[in-house]
Amino acid sequence: MSDSTTRFRLDIAYDGTDFAGWARQRDQRTVQGELQRVLSHLTGESVELTCAGRTDAGVHARGQVAHLDVRRSAVPTAGRLNRALPDDIRVLEVTEVTPAFDARFSALWRRYSYTVSDDPRGADPLRRRYVLDTGKELDIPAMNEAATPLIGEHDFTSFCKIKEHGTTVREILSLTWEREVDPKTGMITAVMHVTADAFCHSMVRSLVGALLAVGEHRKPIDFPKTALELRAREAGVTVMPAHPLVLEEVGYPPAREWVRRQEKTRTLRTLG
Amino acid sequence: MSDSTTRFRLDIAYDGTDFAGWARQRDQRTVQGELQRVLSHLTGESVELTCAGRTDAGVHARGQVAHLDVRRSAVPTAGRLNRALPDDIRVLEVTEVTPAFDARFSALWRRYSYTVSDDPRGADPLRRRYVLDTGKELDIPAMNEAATPLIGEHDFTSFCKIKEHGTTVREILSLTWEREVDPKTGMITAVMHVTADAFCHSMVRSLVGALLAVGEHRKPIDFPKTALELRAREAGVTVMPAHPLVLEEVGYPPAREWVRRQEKTRTLRTLG
Repeated sequence: MSDSTTRFRLDIAYDGTDFAGWARQRDQRTVQGELQRVLSHLTGESVELTCAGRTDAGVHARGQVAHLDVRRSAVPTAGRLNRALPDDIRVLEVTEVTPAFDARFSALWRRYSYTVSDDPRGADPLRRRYVLDTGKELDIPAMNEAATPLIGEHDFTSFCKIKEHGTTVREILSLTWEREVDPKTGMITAVMHVTADAFCHSMVRSLVGALLAVGEHRKPIDFPKTALELRAREAGVTVMPAHPLVLEEVGYPPAREWVRRQEKTRTLRTLG
Repeated sequence: MSDSTTRFRLDIAYDGTDFAGWARQRDQRTVQGELQRVLSHLTGESVELTCAGRTDAGVHARGQVAHLDVRRSAVPTAGRLNRALPDDIRVLEVTEVTPAFDARFSALWRRYSYTVSDDPRGADPLRRRYVLDTGKELDIPAMNEAATPLIGEHDFTSFCKIKEHGTTVREILSLTWEREVDPKTGMITAVMHVTADAFCHSMVRSLVGALLAVGEHRKPIDFPKTALELRAREAGVTVMPAHPLVLEEVGYPPAREWVRRQEKTRTLRTLG
């Protein structure tokens, strides 16, 4: 086989605490910047990564996906990459894919989690870096009821804090709040799991802001629905902190549908 | 009822990273120091804590137990204590007990965990603060076989790095290494769970040092047994780092046995 460029998929986990987000920026420590620096060094090529979810500063990932094009013989193993990477980034897998795979445009959905402690005792000290400590008891059934009108395809302008270049129409596939009790300490948290075809900027943290307002009985149960219908970035939705947010998983169709999905998404995302 | 002094039990969790251990020291940030400062402030009394396991610098706890004597009307709730405490310490429970309860001497056993990553990809970035990253694959069956002769009552001088005032005889009730696979990332760790009536100084980390040497095939399987039989602090056992060590739980007998257990332990611990 020839040694022209081959496409590889990287599955990546990182602790976002000490990063200015995924996207490469001059003079800032970013996940993309660190990965490209190490990849370029190990392959001897200038490498460009495309990811599924451009996480903000402080946001973590257990299931980020990216792709790159590189000579097959140059591609390092996950082990070799990790020995060269700082310990807050780990490449979980390096997989050869066809050029039909696009980490961003072939993706069907992204799933995020957001963890809040409403335990009257506060947050578990050993998990506090990844948990929002509200100190206020949350009404989980009310939050789930308030979330129901958000599920489905809507214009999420009210939950997009930065003006998007393209459309702000997104489809939320599921959104649930669940109680979790730590089996070791008995400490209680509330975890939001949200899956959508894609998210606009700070959308997950805005959804959390609107739903916590309901859960703490500061706003009526129809507040998120009313905010959604306003279709205005001034809808009064608070963007919550980044440190409890984790990109958990990105879903892709079977390989035979990669191209079709890619074309469909490209068209959709560039609609005005 | 009179308001003379009453004994209370505290169940405590902490992230040991930024503490110089449990025991109060002048000019050092310690868990005991922080707790006593807050307790003294809230009760208006000078409070002294006695704990079950005096953890070293950097060691964490999910199940530390301590007791204190204070006027019943002055004792704060866990919620009030936690609002005054730094976020790396949380009081999980405040329970009134009889003076027969002694957090240190009434305890039947202490259980610790120690987590090692031998995943060739390295440690999960979101758990790395609490995991030792060896990068070397561990032979878990060999480690469990090597641990067997350590179980039971022995003189653990070879695993006690600082000369004890009393006896170095301890009874290990169980010691097992288990594989754990993170359900979210698929990353692999090896976890040691060890329970003993008590541990001498740095004993858990020395046990880990001896058993990792076997697990990485650097030492023969009978190395820990041979080291034990030497009964010498110079037995060649390495003390491993503190950050993967967690005091998980302390076991106590039913209340009617608190006094008897206390007397028995006091006698045992002061034998030469």
